[in-house]
Amino acid sequence: MISPKERLQALRLRLRERGYDALVVPRADEYLGEYIPADKERLHWLTGFTGSAGAAVVLARPDDERAAIFVDGRYTVQVREQVDADLYEICHLIEQPPIQWLSANLQPGARVACDPRLHSLAWLRGSIAALRQVDAELVADGDNLVDACWSDRPAPVVRRGLLLDEQYTGEHSLAKRERMAKVLVERGADSALVFAPDAVSWLLNVRGTDMPKLPVLPATALLHADASLDLYVDPARLPQGFAEHVGEGVRVYPEQALDEALRGVGDKNVLACPNTANAWMQLQLEQAGATLIATADPVALAKACKNEAELNGARSAHRRDAVAEIAFLHWLDAEVAAGRLHDEAILADKLYSLRQPLPEFHAVSFDTISAAGGNAAMAHYNHLNGTPAELPMDSVYLVDSGGQYTDGTTDITRTVAIGNPPAEVRRLYTLVLKGHIALAEAVFPPGTTGTQLDAMARQFLWREGFDYDHGTGHGVGAFLSVHEGPQRIAKASSTVALRPGMIVSNEPGYYRDGQFGIRCENLVAVREVGELGGDRAMLGFETLTLVPFDNRLLAVELLTPAEVAWLDAYHARVWQEIGPALDGAVRDWLHAATRPVAL
Amino acid sequence: MISPKERLQALRLRLRERGYDALVVPRADEYLGEYIPADKERLHWLTGFTGSAGAAVVLARPDDERAAIFVDGRYTVQVREQVDADLYEICHLIEQPPIQWLSANLQPGARVACDPRLHSLAWLRGSIAALRQVDAELVADGDNLVDACWSDRPAPVVRRGLLLDEQYTGEHSLAKRERMAKVLVERGADSALVFAPDAVSWLLNVRGTDMPKLPVLPATALLHADASLDLYVDPARLPQGFAEHVGEGVRVYPEQALDEALRGVGDKNVLACPNTANAWMQLQLEQAGATLIATADPVALAKACKNEAELNGARSAHRRDAVAEIAFLHWLDAEVAAGRLHDEAILADKLYSLRQPLPEFHAVSFDTISAAGGNAAMAHYNHLNGTPAELPMDSVYLVDSGGQYTDGTTDITRTVAIGNPPAEVRRLYTLVLKGHIALAEAVFPPGTTGTQLDAMARQFLWREGFDYDHGTGHGVGAFLSVHEGPQRIAKASSTVALRPGMIVSNEPGYYRDGQFGIRCENLVAVREVGELGGDRAMLGFETLTLVPFDNRLLAVELLTPAEVAWLDAYHARVWQEIGPALDGAVRDWLHAATRPVAL
Repeated sequence: MISPKERLQALRLRLRERGYDALVVPRADEYLGEYIPADKERLHWLTGFTGSAGAAVVLARPDDERAAIFVDGRYTVQVREQVDADLYEICHLIEQPPIQWLSANLQPGARVACDPRLHSLAWLRGSIAALRQVDAELVADGDNLVDACWSDRPAPVVRRGLLLDEQYTGEHSLAKRERMAKVLVERGADSALVFAPDAVSWLLNVRGTDMPKLPVLPATALLHADASLDLYVDPARLPQGFAEHVGEGVRVYPEQALDEALRGVGDKNVLACPNTANAWMQLQLEQAGATLIATADPVALAKACKNEAELNGARSAHRRDAVAEIAFLHWLDAEVAAGRLHDEAILADKLYSLRQPLPEFHAVSFDTISAAGGNAAMAHYNHLNGTPAELPMDSVYLVDSGGQYTDGTTDITRTVAIGNPPAEVRRLYTLVLKGHIALAEAVFPPGTTGTQLDAMARQFLWREGFDYDHGTGHGVGAFLSVHEGPQRIAKASSTVALRPGMIVSNEPGYYRDGQFGIRCENLVAVREVGELGGDRAMLGFETLTLVPFDNRLLAVELLTPAEVAWLDAYHARVWQEIGPALDGAVRDWLHAATRPVAL
Repeated sequence: MISPKERLQALRLRLRERGYDALVVPRADEYLGEYIPADKERLHWLTGFTGSAGAAVVLARPDDERAAIFVDGRYTVQVREQVDADLYEICHLIEQPPIQWLSANLQPGARVACDPRLHSLAWLRGSIAALRQVDAELVADGDNLVDACWSDRPAPVVRRGLLLDEQYTGEHSLAKRERMAKVLVERGADSALVFAPDAVSWLLNVRGTDMPKLPVLPATALLHADASLDLYVDPARLPQGFAEHVGEGVRVYPEQALDEALRGVGDKNVLACPNTANAWMQLQLEQAGATLIATADPVALAKACKNEAELNGARSAHRRDAVAEIAFLHWLDAEVAAGRLHDEAILADKLYSLRQPLPEFHAVSFDTISAAGGNAAMAHYNHLNGTPAELPMDSVYLVDSGGQYTDGTTDITRTVAIGNPPAEVRRLYTLVLKGHIALAEAVFPPGTTGTQLDAMARQFLWREGFDYDHGTGHGVGAFLSVHEGPQRIAKASSTVALRPGMIVSNEPGYYRDGQFGIRCENLVAVREVGELGGDRAMLGFETLTLVPFDNRLLAVELLTPAEVAWLDAYHARVWQEIGPALDGAVRDWLHAATRPVAL
């Protein structure tokens, strides 16, 4: 076993051999997505840090052997437990990002290497310009220098993917490609770089199985204006019957051929997103003489707008998922009543044991957040990073979880009373739920963005001097990533309008350091609303998640009659749609949990 | 009198002499502001169009003597009345802007002229690139070709400006310049182009009197990092005692010296806003070897955040303004009761006659919108463009007006019952007022933009299938422009946070073509709100306008108890603050108009 110090020294040696003074190591693979396989966890190998976002910088000059690691607010505690502070200065990823740190610490004339496969083109261009200002050079070096040192690197996981039937996708791959090809023609593009594995998977109606939480086929494609497509993928990952499934016009090449293919594109107009596609592919295209049309990936937008088959799939998946979640909530209540205050790991495992046997279940859609007491104040808590805590009495337990089903992806958070939580907790819970209801009930015209709606969910907290430091809603895929764009509901400025068929989460929360955490999360789908008697068409949300909220946590006096009516109608719907699937004690529990609020 | 046709032909002759195939004539002067003096109304002179936004394009080749005029949705009716459709094709300014029209109509190799003083640098750069795509050239020609033909051009109005005392401004010019100079240093700028007359006026604590509605000194300045300032202005406009008033470090040059001064700046970093400052000044600086730092004008942001003296001034101005508006509303009620249904012009004149004698009154802050019946459905209606309409019975009258006072600028819209309007009008009025109340009561954290709050004012209309096609709020100056940036409350994406001291309008509305128009507008100031019992500081709005809303228009059953409480508290405040300034019948009217809503 090589120590982190030895890894650093080996890397510095390589850097010096190549004449570099520094290297940037981001937590990323070539797809720049959220989940990356173990054989691409270079930041983890180098530093020991396991968080889902971060970067390191290594200086290599013999007279200045410093290094730094950069993490965001979620990981400031974790990084100190995992990374040797004698080897790495610990910095804030947002407040002092790597390039800023380098600008302050490099000597004039310094040469800094980065792997252009692991950065967006926008990042690369901005960073080159920033380092030029301090007379330093950022070199996009396609040979990854960490890989060159990584002797104990795990073998890549290569598993055969799945074909997704049209009963789930609702649209043949050929039809999707023809629809996208029209967008290319409209934008004056000969081809488009479909760089994101979830976009490729959607376009071809296939799914991957390498990383169960994120069922994407790791692949990149070039889509052409004639609706044909060149796919670059490890053939061992292609499911049987792939060629017949996708229809004519799909040419398959091994991953290694992408490099040469991009260099051979020539004098074409190629659509590519500089903010999300890796720099290397776009640099190759430019060097080939192609003109890049810098624009958001049109496949991402098309994928986000689910068709009726996908929406029906989501509804089915949520109904099944609700059965597991409700069984879990019933079990939890019974255990607490019997005085068994389990720890977070036992609770998460129990929930998994109820989801796992469900039809069409493949995997959880992300690591379950099972957070007792003060741990729930960390919005992205993971009980596996330390000793799982036991439930304290008279507190709230927060459980954020979801599943990947063949017909849809789920994501739900419930906050549950353990005993008799204090009045302040119930007050905050009620303010959070009021925001959830306001967003669920929102009606808005086409063209409205999530930025315009975000305050709906926060207004009741704001009025009392509270807020939460995360977005209100993220996009969710159809048996794809549980976090997908381009839409979102957040304070941050977004120009992407919410469109019919988009699935987003509705998850306001509140967190008090060391004391408690609250989040109320359902998934909702954007829908056209029926005739309102006005003069314009409007959109609204259909709630997909069908699990009761814990009415024992309500400060009923803070709810308006309209809010009580929403909650009672939601619970009546849960009882009506899920009750018939349950038996015995769980059914009785649901009946009690969905009773109208007593005013 | 030369006819529009002769003007066009004279202009085409000039264009051919210079070797141009086309000319772009925007409705703009070199300050790119909203109001422009008569001697800069080139679009009006050429075409006859008097609207506040638009452009014309004139083709000059003997074989293609077409021309087009471009106006937005507000002016589609008016342009047909004012402009000869035989001479000009009428186009939509937003849907088919001039450059797009030119791209579709020019021959390859065409040369198009524009005056770079009348366009922003961002527009010029974008347009040069767009025309290059059709193999045409856009030439920035500093010699204005319209001026060369304009034989009956009026002489410029040149009036001496005013010094504004520190009791109104709250901060000496020297202190302002030192504060701004620090921002320059932070941004690495040697100088900043302070191009906007309202920014210059604010920075020097002076006001102009050429255009009473917009009391700005027409001038441009270069502010330097040492807090000194070069002012380019017609000396005849400078008030007596200017030098002592502004303190040391202000150097005055005639307007004509600006050209040479910019060319002499040399190798400096100059902060300038490419979106709002004219292209000519920035091109001159670049040619002089200066590096442009493209960023929003920091003076605009500082000016928008009013200090306590300015806020106190605004409060005083609004109290006086309320006396006139209330007297008008009382008079209107009495006239209608007596069966005298006046026309829009008589109503507007009456309101003016009540404002005009008020202390510190200088002028209206914009042309009064006095709109009876269906005319109010045009959000920017002006009764002077046609025959003023008489009030119809059982309708609503909309009056949007304001004043320029030494201590502040006002802007108020009230919608008034004339007789007994139909239930549908009262329903829509109530939905609009509910939105007004929701925004007035909004509480939000620092960093929140108007984009995030806009939906608060629309939510009740949206829920019933209605909306309005204008922003909800614009910034308002302190005895300056009634429309100022950078803040706004609108659907459009904005990254400018609302900050304490900013004054904005709160003006949701509803318009039904040919039938009626509704708008409820107060001005509000952003304020820190006191202790809320939460864990974060919050901002909110203080309402400045103190005039009752017409409770006769309420559909009371649509209001929540909290909304009624807001309305009653507002009316109680109006009675308490304005009542003592009134006598006799007006006082009695206000007492009745501010009675609590009868539930």
